[in-house]
Amino acid sequence: MNKFLKAAYEQALKSYNEGGIPIGSVLVHDGKIIGAGHNQRVQKGSAILHGEMDALENAGRLPAAVYAECTLYTTLSPCPMCSGTMILYKIPKVVIGENRTFMGQEEWLKEHGMEVEVADSPECYELMQRFIKEKPAVWNEDIGV
Amino acid sequence: MNKFLKAAYEQALKSYNEGGIPIGSVLVHDGKIIGAGHNQRVQKGSAILHGEMDALENAGRLPAAVYAECTLYTTLSPCPMCSGTMILYKIPKVVIGENRTFMGQEEWLKEHGMEVEVADSPECYELMQRFIKEKPAVWNEDIGV
Repeated sequence: MNKFLKAAYEQALKSYNEGGIPIGSVLVHDGKIIGAGHNQRVQKGSAILHGEMDALENAGRLPAAVYAECTLYTTLSPCPMCSGTMILYKIPKVVIGENRTFMGQEEWLKEHGMEVEVADSPECYELMQRFIKEKPAVWNEDIGV
Repeated sequence: MNKFLKAAYEQALKSYNEGGIPIGSVLVHDGKIIGAGHNQRVQKGSAILHGEMDALENAGRLPAAVYAECTLYTTLSPCPMCSGTMILYKIPKVVIGENRTFMGQEEWLKEHGMEVEVADSPECYELMQRFIKEKPAVWNEDIGV
């Protein structure tokens, strides 16, 4: 696995070990991770801190020029909220662990000229599948079902 | 002004008086405000707490069935992040204070079957115009420009 996707996976695994939803993300600029995070629905009772949002929030306030040079790595295909955030900040590239569990707004991102790379990682997929079997209601809540 | 839009405007004014970006929102369910908030870029150094996001976060974790009966009131047309969040949670209606300052993803919301009502409120518009004249760089940062 690519080292940045691995860092996103480690965030997901950390969340799983805390009893939370195992989706993690890292924001990378100029070869360095500037924000890392994971889903915080269970841990912080949050409705908006998906993995991608947590990573962006942890990166802090950034000028548009920095986002324009970033890549976001995330273990699962990004939902409309997280995709919309990437479009707001014009983050040009996203690397996705897997989209077999959940297909997000990848086509919408491409329509906005963003590069979308899907790694189809077995580790990312198996971790999500394990969680969904254990806590299907929490997963459904997270995707508004 | 409709009483719920007025509550959103009061959130925006509170943010302005704190030195922050004057955009506010309230989430309404069954005739009651269940979450209120405003932009927190300045106050909390947040990259993701737009007014709509702050209101949703303050409403806490909710099942899909509650979102499906909610209306979101917001002083300014919602950006891709906030629109994506409404689509994620299938919030069926949004009432917007104004869209002259900034035109968000209203068409995208309509494509998803959501009702979009624009009040074209002079109060909402004038407050935003005042802020943008005073702090244009903060406003640009908030919309990824």
